[in-house]
Amino acid sequence: MNSEYPSQLLENAVNQFASLPGIGRKTSLRLVLNLLRRSQTDVLNFTNSLVNLKNEVKYCRICHNISDTDVCSICSSTRRNRQLVCVVENIQDVMSIERTGQYNGLYHVLGGVISPIEGVGPNDIEVESLVSRIVPEQIEEVVFALPATIEGDTTNYYIYKRLQPFNIITTQIARGVAVGNELEYTDEITLGRSIINRTEFKG
Amino acid sequence: MNSEYPSQLLENAVNQFASLPGIGRKTSLRLVLNLLRRSQTDVLNFTNSLVNLKNEVKYCRICHNISDTDVCSICSSTRRNRQLVCVVENIQDVMSIERTGQYNGLYHVLGGVISPIEGVGPNDIEVESLVSRIVPEQIEEVVFALPATIEGDTTNYYIYKRLQPFNIITTQIARGVAVGNELEYTDEITLGRSIINRTEFKG
Repeated sequence: MNSEYPSQLLENAVNQFASLPGIGRKTSLRLVLNLLRRSQTDVLNFTNSLVNLKNEVKYCRICHNISDTDVCSICSSTRRNRQLVCVVENIQDVMSIERTGQYNGLYHVLGGVISPIEGVGPNDIEVESLVSRIVPEQIEEVVFALPATIEGDTTNYYIYKRLQPFNIITTQIARGVAVGNELEYTDEITLGRSIINRTEFKG
Repeated sequence: MNSEYPSQLLENAVNQFASLPGIGRKTSLRLVLNLLRRSQTDVLNFTNSLVNLKNEVKYCRICHNISDTDVCSICSSTRRNRQLVCVVENIQDVMSIERTGQYNGLYHVLGGVISPIEGVGPNDIEVESLVSRIVPEQIEEVVFALPATIEGDTTNYYIYKRLQPFNIITTQIARGVAVGNELEYTDEITLGRSIINRTEFKG
């Protein structure tokens, strides 16, 4: 055998799965052999779910979240507070905030954050479409919910500057000690900032 | 939104990936979104590798290892020692033993081990085809390389009994302290057996 694998077909499939993030070659082989043990119909259901997603998926033309329709269910909902727009990096972040049940406004998915190191500038993400959404009488507040990283902060600041001409409120989600965490295990920067940014305790 | 996911197409794909062993829903979402960012061609290469494997894969009619041909490259090789047959549970085990570079005989892939608890009997695995391979003048030794579990031991014993009418040697791969392991961290059963089954030290 020239190859480590007894079959070229097997090797091809293993190579494909191993190209996914966090999937090594051993895990990949395990996943492929698991699929191989299934029926032909099951394998087709698996692959069709991907092909259909790739071919038919839409992105909401207002907030750029993934959607089955031109305008997503959040942007078209009459039950949401349309004066509030929460700016997030990606689709997963929308899902995370929705799961909290604590937010009832709209979203804007940037599709990334500004990162000079990775060559991502303001024009590579959905900043212009955010700015063009801002109609001062209709939108009251923009909430930044970007990652608490240098790239997230840079993006916050860039968008903040772009929104200054409009007379709207800009806020940022709270940073501090995570609920349930011991102070002892909270990193110094987070703990330091949580002291500076302490809020009134209303017993 | 009724569902946690903003798109039914996305949810379908996430469900499919989450049906794989060891892949949770968060990991599944990450994998699907990674594929979604790729080109249509890349997604088709991914799914075709699976469909082709499922439709075209063969199993060697002698050893039952996965193969692109009717008889696999090991069984058809003239460079292998054809008097030696190593009995393994599955395809991965063939690959593991091949990687050691220490074995030059043939294989027999059972496709499982006898497990009364999981309802796997001798007829559910490739035992009969092993017995029918045994031609005393042609095969000298059968090496058991099954897992060191109760199921592996049961299967070893069952096959051993079936092979007794033939006048061939049956061996088992060595069990003991793993190379590089401290005795302190070796479990008691392994350590105990490695004392009982000590081998001559040839300084």
